[in-house]
Amino acid sequence: MTRSPDSLQALLAQYQARVEAALERYLPPVSRSPARLHEAMRYAVLGAGKRIRPVLCYLTGEAVGTPPLRLDGPAAAVEMIHAYSLIHDDLPAMDDDDLRRGRPTTHRAFDEATAILAGDALQVLAFEVLASDPAMTQDPSARLEVIRLLAVASGTQGMAGGQALDLAATGHALELAGIEDMHRRKTGALIAASVDMAAAVAPSVEAGARQALGRYGRALGLAFQIVDDLLDVEGDAELVGKPVRADAAARKPTYPVVAGVAAAHARAEALCQEALDALAPLDGRADMLRQLARFIVERRQ
Amino acid sequence: MTRSPDSLQALLAQYQARVEAALERYLPPVSRSPARLHEAMRYAVLGAGKRIRPVLCYLTGEAVGTPPLRLDGPAAAVEMIHAYSLIHDDLPAMDDDDLRRGRPTTHRAFDEATAILAGDALQVLAFEVLASDPAMTQDPSARLEVIRLLAVASGTQGMAGGQALDLAATGHALELAGIEDMHRRKTGALIAASVDMAAAVAPSVEAGARQALGRYGRALGLAFQIVDDLLDVEGDAELVGKPVRADAAARKPTYPVVAGVAAAHARAEALCQEALDALAPLDGRADMLRQLARFIVERRQ
Repeated sequence: MTRSPDSLQALLAQYQARVEAALERYLPPVSRSPARLHEAMRYAVLGAGKRIRPVLCYLTGEAVGTPPLRLDGPAAAVEMIHAYSLIHDDLPAMDDDDLRRGRPTTHRAFDEATAILAGDALQVLAFEVLASDPAMTQDPSARLEVIRLLAVASGTQGMAGGQALDLAATGHALELAGIEDMHRRKTGALIAASVDMAAAVAPSVEAGARQALGRYGRALGLAFQIVDDLLDVEGDAELVGKPVRADAAARKPTYPVVAGVAAAHARAEALCQEALDALAPLDGRADMLRQLARFIVERRQ
Repeated sequence: MTRSPDSLQALLAQYQARVEAALERYLPPVSRSPARLHEAMRYAVLGAGKRIRPVLCYLTGEAVGTPPLRLDGPAAAVEMIHAYSLIHDDLPAMDDDDLRRGRPTTHRAFDEATAILAGDALQVLAFEVLASDPAMTQDPSARLEVIRLLAVASGTQGMAGGQALDLAATGHALELAGIEDMHRRKTGALIAASVDMAAAVAPSVEAGARQALGRYGRALGLAFQIVDDLLDVEGDAELVGKPVRADAAARKPTYPVVAGVAAAHARAEALCQEALDALAPLDGRADMLRQLARFIVERRQ
């Protein structure tokens, strides 16, 4: 099926709205105790964010024939993990950021203790949703595989480990290989997991397609972070929703800082191509995933 | 089977050593990157702690016929969640404690950012272990039930929610019902989950026994926290391993502070009896669980 060039935008809007509704449903209401904790969780998750990871879940679902209803759980769960990581990364003891997505960070809008707990509670809610959501799958082994994928991507070989490497690198020189390792963990792992989880929920995906999607997710995940760092160097603070030039100010070694802006653009472009090439076995089914890869590498925010 | 009165101590030592070995196995080695994060995780988990929750797992296993090998995963996972909660609770933005189990708290021994990340990584490692440990069960539905039990017990209706209520209550008056609700979530939920997880792993446990164990776990969980607060009022800092009289200094409403020491002792005793009564359907199989309840309520540390 061929779509018009602007249909990615329409799909993005559709799936952003879909995951927003799912998150609204899974997050505990403010009417339930402890109200302030629930309020902070909802503040950190709802109403902002590009929802790239959930959109990747849903679009992978389109490519492998999994209906969106079955992916609400994984899509919301990965966004909860992402949101928790932003809350904790923004804390004074970490990156000490006051602004996120154009709004005060959670510890600024609430307080540090509440922000720490809101992050903790979001992380575990992600796993509760994956363990419980009835629509996801009737196959308990597939459900366990989804849980395992998200856990590994969030742990010390994935996101939490990447953030530790990031903190350790601040103020120090780092070779490009070290930066790529850090990026692959800090951002890449969760983006790749968004794709892999959707493939794991699918009733039957041939091994070749699953591997193709895995390669796509890993290449795109690294590209995403390089573009993020490029936006910090070249971006418009108003579009990006947070201060730019922050990495250099914080003496963080990033791809564009170490290799130069031109080389960073070239690397992002090469990774985008790698992601596109990986999708070859999926032919036309993966067109929207291809458009999303382009969109991610060419985004200005 | 009847055991000699001193065999609880021997069993405690045996299962403490067993879960220590399991934790050692599941925790990532310091030789793997990021080394400092792994070091902090190991520091926070290994070599100290009473291991009450893992012991409850193993002893419940004895009562329902589940061999300890199958409970290494749940026992280690619940201890990881407990350890992560201690790391985060001790942070300057939370209880601001310098000493835990007679040693510097994790953020004192390392730094705040590493402590936050170590807590985050321990929480998710618990779920990775439950999703992956091959010895636990061959039944994926039982495995999912264990994951769900631990997730709910750790979230806003359990531990994280209890800590939020605790922070909100500091400096404020709280009725006894409010204190019990806070305790049931903050400490009780995870202790009850230790019992429930072991029952969920068992190949076949009659519904009556499962409910009996649930009631036991819930009563014991609340009793545990009341005794903890009593130790803060009456205890010996050296035995307890952290400063005592800290709750009153921090103006935390606790059971003994609000109801008085005598009433708190009476309530702990009544809850212990409730836990013992609950075990009636399990007759002799639950003798060690009975002894453990007595041990928990009569402990001096």
